[in-house]
Amino acid sequence: MPVEPAGAVLTEHAVAVREGAIEAVLPTHEAASRFPGYQSVELARHALIPGLVNAHTHAAMTLMRGLADDLPLMRWLEEHVWPAEARHVSREFVRDGTLLACAEMLRGGVTCFNDMYFFPEAALEAALAAGLRSAHGIIVIEFPSAYASDPGDYLRKGLELRDRAGDEPLASFCFAPHAPYTVSDETFRKVATLSAELDLPVHIHVHETREEIERSLAEHGVRPLERLRRLGLLSPNLIAVHAVHLDELEIQLLARHGCSVVHCPSSNLKLASGFAPIAALLDAGVNVALGTDGAASNNRLDMFQEMRSAALLAKAVAHDAQAMPAHAALRAATLGGAQALGLAERIGSIVPGKCADLVAVDLCAPELTPLYDALSHLVYAAGREHVTHVWVAGELRIRDGCFANDAFASLEARVQLWQNALAGLAGP
Amino acid sequence: MPVEPAGAVLTEHAVAVREGAIEAVLPTHEAASRFPGYQSVELARHALIPGLVNAHTHAAMTLMRGLADDLPLMRWLEEHVWPAEARHVSREFVRDGTLLACAEMLRGGVTCFNDMYFFPEAALEAALAAGLRSAHGIIVIEFPSAYASDPGDYLRKGLELRDRAGDEPLASFCFAPHAPYTVSDETFRKVATLSAELDLPVHIHVHETREEIERSLAEHGVRPLERLRRLGLLSPNLIAVHAVHLDELEIQLLARHGCSVVHCPSSNLKLASGFAPIAALLDAGVNVALGTDGAASNNRLDMFQEMRSAALLAKAVAHDAQAMPAHAALRAATLGGAQALGLAERIGSIVPGKCADLVAVDLCAPELTPLYDALSHLVYAAGREHVTHVWVAGELRIRDGCFANDAFASLEARVQLWQNALAGLAGP
Repeated sequence: MPVEPAGAVLTEHAVAVREGAIEAVLPTHEAASRFPGYQSVELARHALIPGLVNAHTHAAMTLMRGLADDLPLMRWLEEHVWPAEARHVSREFVRDGTLLACAEMLRGGVTCFNDMYFFPEAALEAALAAGLRSAHGIIVIEFPSAYASDPGDYLRKGLELRDRAGDEPLASFCFAPHAPYTVSDETFRKVATLSAELDLPVHIHVHETREEIERSLAEHGVRPLERLRRLGLLSPNLIAVHAVHLDELEIQLLARHGCSVVHCPSSNLKLASGFAPIAALLDAGVNVALGTDGAASNNRLDMFQEMRSAALLAKAVAHDAQAMPAHAALRAATLGGAQALGLAERIGSIVPGKCADLVAVDLCAPELTPLYDALSHLVYAAGREHVTHVWVAGELRIRDGCFANDAFASLEARVQLWQNALAGLAGP
Repeated sequence: MPVEPAGAVLTEHAVAVREGAIEAVLPTHEAASRFPGYQSVELARHALIPGLVNAHTHAAMTLMRGLADDLPLMRWLEEHVWPAEARHVSREFVRDGTLLACAEMLRGGVTCFNDMYFFPEAALEAALAAGLRSAHGIIVIEFPSAYASDPGDYLRKGLELRDRAGDEPLASFCFAPHAPYTVSDETFRKVATLSAELDLPVHIHVHETREEIERSLAEHGVRPLERLRRLGLLSPNLIAVHAVHLDELEIQLLARHGCSVVHCPSSNLKLASGFAPIAALLDAGVNVALGTDGAASNNRLDMFQEMRSAALLAKAVAHDAQAMPAHAALRAATLGGAQALGLAERIGSIVPGKCADLVAVDLCAPELTPLYDALSHLVYAAGREHVTHVWVAGELRIRDGCFANDAFASLEARVQLWQNALAGLAGP
């Protein structure tokens, strides 16, 4: 299932890979003669898809998975997440939490994630140890944290990391101003200037809740997207995360400026944020990607779940059972994310010249039979548990459902220590 | 997680089972001395939950899984499902399709299902072969099928089956008039009389789509629930499936009459039927159960998925992140279904005296760590792939994720033949 062209399902095909890149996509019977001497992996009953791109997460927050459920966004943030972060978040917390996130994501076919969190250098370290591709937010927020003292400090630290990691082929960077209600006009102006200068995406939570919009109207006299427009932030570099509450004009605005939307269906439901108008966004031509959000508000980093939820919700929201068909959900989970991150030339589809980020999904199980339409099964019936093999840039990371390297060897014990600490017991 | 009392999580506990029934729930350290000589199964890192009750499905339709996706309900029924049924549905189709459904459901922790389909004797045969508990609809619909010629014939055949199977401890029966738009007043009156006489539940699709309600207003001058009320069908025996489009008075009506609602979140989304007001129903005191619907409109018979979707959707629909917390979703998936089926005295919770329908879920995996709240993980983070052991009436049906008997030995080959036939190739 190469994703390009849209909806294509090639049967009896092979993918030739060389030096981490896709060399050819061709009928299996031609593969041995055209590529003699290549190591061969036969997956006769599998679907091969591009690696899934988790276009919005806070990876380290896996350490808070299930810590405070069934609460509204602002209470969840103000009474639980922010206090826990103030007490516990450190370089080590981010490294261990991100490594746990990578373990979960790799097993579930995610080969690239777009992260927004404190200590991005620790998140990058974990991603590289795990062998995932990752985009890291140069996070900026008005309040101080263990990571940085003020907006200037956040930006400086993030840009320094980008300079240091510039040559790392699996790493990329975005600006990540947290949200309209936590970032000032002055900081947004700096981000707009820097983003244009460096041609980097701007990754931001926006129009997530009604309260956010009401607060913006009270404090700035306009809704958040209009405020961002005035501050020069609407462009193909904008990654608008959530985008739940949009009127018709705002959908057109996003389309006209070539912005991307990252849809996080599980998170939007769990925090009671609402229902994003995904069919209308797709109809308007907006690039839609999918994200899990952090494990504290989902509680799984499972892009199969997000594909299925996105495809199903789009139908009920649009009153149209034909909205977001299976192939559109797969596109959002792969090429949509790649495009949002500015990586569509390198990843997101199985096309010669792109990186060999590939995922094999075993379609032979009682719950996946009979099989009339493999794309339908991939989105509506299969789950991450059917992933058997994952390659990132041609390197095998998951083999028969198990980790192919020892990056995660001591992780379980470290996670247990964090669990003890966050639950208020003795810990690191 | 015994479900009764609500929200309870007992740690370091054991369940004693004797002759298919739960004898005691007690601290593990007391188990060996109080029940010497009992065979012991130690599941140190697992959650033990009551067997899941799938309160609405058309099990045999697994054979149509993914046959026609991304279509609205009436087109899906009229252009795809009904023609395929007219051509293929037979006793053998129902037996094989139901056996496939049982394989999928058992692996996913479902120990009881409520079925509505043609040839219920074949469905019952499959369920007993698989070792599942099942409730079978005495289906009635105005149009003829390969199974029966007219409403009288449907009722007669269903009642005969109930008489024959009366002593089978794993079987029970409901009347199953298909829907308000396919059943006449005369037939509904007969069902109401028989249901009261025999004290059997009445299992019906109702208020599923706006079109159904409009059609009822045009043809009967009232909305479907009001029509059912006038026909004497609102009672604690009514199992109202879908119940998507309800006004405030209808919610009160269902509560006042003690009716049960079976919520089918995936199906309601996939067919773009809408969003059932589950938090409002729960607030009104209506018993809510969960169902997967058939695999043709879901496309999985996965009660973990339905629990998670129900809990998440309830929050966004009610604009309240505290709506349907995890323990309420687990209750709906177990005791709620048992109550709807009139089986709450026998199944639905881990309570001494009830049948030993039990499911063990392994909570030790990267995607389930850390663990602060096991109930939260069960609903929000775990999936059916974490089910390791399933007992029905004390009999082990799934051991370490694999079938414990050979009921499914030749199933794969038979499903392949049906797939060929339904896809238009040579077949049975």
